Amino acid sequence: MVLRTELTSILGITNPIVLAPMAGVSHAALISAVANTGSLGLLGVGYATDPQWIHNQMRQASQAYKPESGGALGIGFITWWLEKHPALLEAALEWKPTALWFSFGNYGQFLETIRERSPDTKVIAQVQTVEEALEAVEMYGVDIIVAQGSEAGGHGAKVNASTFCLVPEINDAVGDRVPVVAAGGVTDGRHLAAALMLGASGIVIGTRFCATPESAMHPNAKDCLVASRDGGRSTVRTTAFDVLRGYSAWPSAYAFRVLCNDVTESIQSGTPVEEWKSKYEQALQSGDFNVAHVGAGQGVGLIKGIWPAKLVVERVMEEALECFQIAAAVSDPRRLRAKL
Amino acid sequence: MVLRTELTSILGITNPIVLAPMAGVSHAALISAVANTGSLGLLGVGYATDPQWIHNQMRQASQAYKPESGGALGIGFITWWLEKHPALLEAALEWKPTALWFSFGNYGQFLETIRERSPDTKVIAQVQTVEEALEAVEMYGVDIIVAQGSEAGGHGAKVNASTFCLVPEINDAVGDRVPVVAAGGVTDGRHLAAALMLGASGIVIGTRFCATPESAMHPNAKDCLVASRDGGRSTVRTTAFDVLRGYSAWPSAYAFRVLCNDVTESIQSGTPVEEWKSKYEQALQSGDFNVAHVGAGQGVGLIKGIWPAKLVVERVMEEALECFQIAAAVSDPRRLRAKL
Repeated sequence: MVLRTELTSILGITNPIVLAPMAGVSHAALISAVANTGSLGLLGVGYATDPQWIHNQMRQASQAYKPESGGALGIGFITWWLEKHPALLEAALEWKPTALWFSFGNYGQFLETIRERSPDTKVIAQVQTVEEALEAVEMYGVDIIVAQGSEAGGHGAKVNASTFCLVPEINDAVGDRVPVVAAGGVTDGRHLAAALMLGASGIVIGTRFCATPESAMHPNAKDCLVASRDGGRSTVRTTAFDVLRGYSAWPSAYAFRVLCNDVTESIQSGTPVEEWKSKYEQALQSGDFNVAHVGAGQGVGLIKGIWPAKLVVERVMEEALECFQIAAAVSDPRRLRAKL
Repeated sequence: MVLRTELTSILGITNPIVLAPMAGVSHAALISAVANTGSLGLLGVGYATDPQWIHNQMRQASQAYKPESGGALGIGFITWWLEKHPALLEAALEWKPTALWFSFGNYGQFLETIRERSPDTKVIAQVQTVEEALEAVEMYGVDIIVAQGSEAGGHGAKVNASTFCLVPEINDAVGDRVPVVAAGGVTDGRHLAAALMLGASGIVIGTRFCATPESAMHPNAKDCLVASRDGGRSTVRTTAFDVLRGYSAWPSAYAFRVLCNDVTESIQSGTPVEEWKSKYEQALQSGDFNVAHVGAGQGVGLIKGIWPAKLVVERVMEEALECFQIAAAVSDPRRLRAKL
């Protein structure tokens, strides 16, 4: 074990790394691959409606999972969707997951059931503001806070702070009570090292795990991720694809960060999104990501290739350690060593 | 000297800290106070039109500056403004500043003059995208790149990456040729430690230095900074105050991050900004920052009080060192020490 933090301790895992539970990406193959690196792999339930889908995915993941790896399996929900399909929680609880993750909605109503039916399961609340972090800890007593900065790919707050500012402020607010995990833009080992310096107890990786052979993302979309540069310019937060996909029940505080493409550009120049409806459906079928969406965070420019999940984690851990060695080298080693 | 980096070496300073050259804030008292901590204090020329103003400020700053402090003095321009008032550069060069800083415009045209008239002066280009960083290094051969993320207070790009994502990507692009300095949201020592992990050679601090006794910001505005929480929600990037101040020549790629107030809220709900004109001018006079603007970055929630510049720098340095010690503690100390 190289990095021990409160997060690794509370989850009983080896690396302070969590796979974001991404709809359409974080399926059995990816979550088991990530768990087998010693990290936490979270199933992205997304817009599933059939509890059987969770059972199928968790069965496959459990078969591929090697307990001796030091990793763990969990399940993540889009909370407002779960509110409409509560049977999904019942299915999840049968697997006694190491952790359940809630984003975007009122998870408080589910906590009693979880504590009764699977008391060892840790509850992770992903929040976008300092106020939400305080509520999660003080009102709901969750076990782990994920602070999701504005850089994040997929859904996030329309208006909130970056990871760089949100993590230390949330850590000041609740870090004495629960571990705070950094999400949003986290791509390589420099980010792991930086997140720990900001007070985080670990990181959530999303986009970087999309560009793995194990991810369920379309291969053409993975190629788009690798080809992208400067994620501040090549991604945009939009509600366009929620409209096109028919998920217009998304709460208005959130929107979806995607790679800029023909659709986002045409909408910015005033074309009504509905005009893309039929082309969008064709593009999904054909894998044309000039029109279909590719969820991506602002760290996308740091993705250098389609790497196995195992290689992603190894490089992140190695690179973070190298960063720490640089820290030791640039600072006065006598002062540093004196306090070790 | 606690932290030696390429930035401290190239500028001949003690701490890898740069005061942002903020219009109306970074005047003689603040820049000399920051220089006397061993950091780089940059005069914010802002919207000055009279070269004599630069002479007056630099004279005062030079008198207060203690060369034995290990710090240095420099001057920063809003480049598009300088293009209209080139005599400001002539005045600046008479002071043979350690560094000249350019933001927001075409600085290339000034470089020959600087190299001829003050060859030891280092040229700092503040950029907001990876492309601009490449241009600055490959086309203009600047000495130092400041990568300004979207969190930044004051002017910045309307659309770009956060510090957390921009710094490592710019470092990958040009970090083998020039030092890259992190700007945007940088508030405390956790940020210094994190920025170094992201590959930065130092940090630019803006908002945190506004809330010092030495800053030329209005006292009521300083109080607003201290009272603010969660800078992702309590600040917004807007062109409203450029319109109200009559600086509508600002290039369209940029806008001004300020604390949310009555003006920003009313504009978001559809009121034309011009309707605020007379109230705004009154508010500037009376120091009413419900209406007048307070420039602030997303790190504003981490500002705990109005501290002397010296205390800000001491705390930042101490806190960064503590962060590095945590890095050593959470990582396997044998592996870390083995490579020291």
